[in-house]
Amino acid sequence: MSADGTPGDELQLARARALFELAPFIQDVGYQLRALGPGWVETELVVESRHLQHDGFIHAGVQGTMADHTAGGAAFTVLGPGKVALTVEYKLNLLRPASGDRLRCRAEVVKPGRSITVAESRVFDRHGDEEFLAATATVTLAIVDDPNA
Amino acid sequence: MSADGTPGDELQLARARALFELAPFIQDVGYQLRALGPGWVETELVVESRHLQHDGFIHAGVQGTMADHTAGGAAFTVLGPGKVALTVEYKLNLLRPASGDRLRCRAEVVKPGRSITVAESRVFDRHGDEEFLAATATVTLAIVDDPNA
Amino acid sequence: MSADGTPGDELQLARARALFELAPFIQDVGYQLRALGPGWVETELVVESRHLQHDGFIHAGVQGTMADHTAGGAAFTVLGPGKVALTVEYKLNLLRPASGDRLRCRAEVVKPGRSITVAESRVFDRHGDEEFLAATATVTLAIVDDPNA
Amino acid sequence: MSADGTPGDELQLARARALFELAPFIQDVGYQLRALGPGWVETELVVESRHLQHDGFIHAGVQGTMADHTAGGAAFTVLGPGKVALTVEYKLNLLRPASGDRLRCRAEVVKPGRSITVAESRVFDRHGDEEFLAATATVTLAIVDDPNA
Repeated sequence: MSADGTPGDELQLARARALFELAPFIQDVGYQLRALGPGWVETELVVESRHLQHDGFIHAGVQGTMADHTAGGAAFTVLGPGKVALTVEYKLNLLRPASGDRLRCRAEVVKPGRSITVAESRVFDRHGDEEFLAATATVTLAIVDDPNA
Repeated sequence: MSADGTPGDELQLARARALFELAPFIQDVGYQLRALGPGWVETELVVESRHLQHDGFIHAGVQGTMADHTAGGAAFTVLGPGKVALTVEYKLNLLRPASGDRLRCRAEVVKPGRSITVAESRVFDRHGDEEFLAATATVTLAIVDDPNA
Repeated sequence: MSADGTPGDELQLARARALFELAPFIQDVGYQLRALGPGWVETELVVESRHLQHDGFIHAGVQGTMADHTAGGAAFTVLGPGKVALTVEYKLNLLRPASGDRLRCRAEVVKPGRSITVAESRVFDRHGDEEFLAATATVTLAIVDDPNA
Repeated sequence: MSADGTPGDELQLARARALFELAPFIQDVGYQLRALGPGWVETELVVESRHLQHDGFIHAGVQGTMADHTAGGAAFTVLGPGKVALTVEYKLNLLRPASGDRLRCRAEVVKPGRSITVAESRVFDRHGDEEFLAATATVTLAIVDDPNA
């Protein structure tokens, strides 16, 4: 998708990529950016035993963090210069227990805005070449001036 | 609070404590159970640099995971024997950027039920002896038969 | 979409239609069912001045009620006999102020289940032949035995 | 509660009251403002048969609209001059079927802000002198310049 007058140009995509990867918690859990374009980002997590809940399924928090951060990345791809996007709230629905070897997340901007941007994320539970929709999230972000700009 | 005919007795509190601590992702991030009683749980996280967002504030996913898992613990304190609580969905509002040395979370069951339990969590950003409300969450859990019982 | 072993047959579609139209609050506000199939429902509202907020835009509650009830209708289309779907929670994001002459809502079941079904609704603000996405909602429903069956 | 440097003075309370009552959809459904102060509002609805769902319980949309609008009122009580609060999103959990003769709603601002305010609403199902918590909601509002100021 294209944003309201804010071209997701190459520079902005590079910036979205850099900011995604710079977040220490994202590195610590192991999420990786796989692809991005104007208004969307795809990420992946190779599941390890440390990502699990006590019952052996992948922890809801692993999916929620992925949905939120990937949505934030998608919002960044359509931001103007000198702006950043901060999560105001997110809501995650867990549709099935996830137990695959990887998680894939795709986030898309539903409505870009000057002060509020809304994105939706879908988290897929991958078992080799198969995948199942595991969770869906809506993320509301505030667009504010970059304090470092 | 007390649940609808499901006494949060000592055995159930011990079970809630054990399940909280057994989750690998919870251990990996570093959340600790501090106190619990019938219908509520309090947890804490000593903040490390690996918990941060790229801007230096504590990552939303760290707060969301804490809110969800602590709410799950609170739901467990009022469960009957042979039952477990699984997160159906959660919604987190981030009220202020958090930058303290610790996070404290308190979750309380708002409505226990035979099939659906709802809990609310509050995450506090602690700076030494001071704390500020950083995030609030609502968590919906499904009560199902324990597959291991 | 098709549900997990619960065929959205003609009888069930007729039942979904009847239940939609029987709700007094839905009749009172004026929502109308326009089309339905297995896993989805579309509804419409002809906007009147009584549906507005003080600022002249369509009230969020008019959109939220439409998103919830249409999602409930979609859940009904894939229910087995003797079951009903009750809203556990819904979350509505308002993307743009709506000021059209009609609202159109399309709800789709994202995940049918034996105990929990999740549906997503989109509300469109129609100005004659044009329409804009005004709101998006996620609705979680509990599947329970029909007390009247 | 008191807001961050935005005194909920008499003028602002009068303005919150006026705006609450001016909304046509609120008048049409029949919600009434009962009391308010800095950071909170209480409202009431005398339940009529037109407010019901097909199963005879009070419609979720009646509760959602009440939770949203009452939260908006609470946000108004702590706004500065020349500002209005617009709902960005709301999330409602239905805890029990409601079947009373009245609904009471109390909304409180959890976090006032210059650009985003968050409020929580509780809807109580009243049966004569008794009441039960029926629903809980979180409402996120954007604070923007009043276009009519």
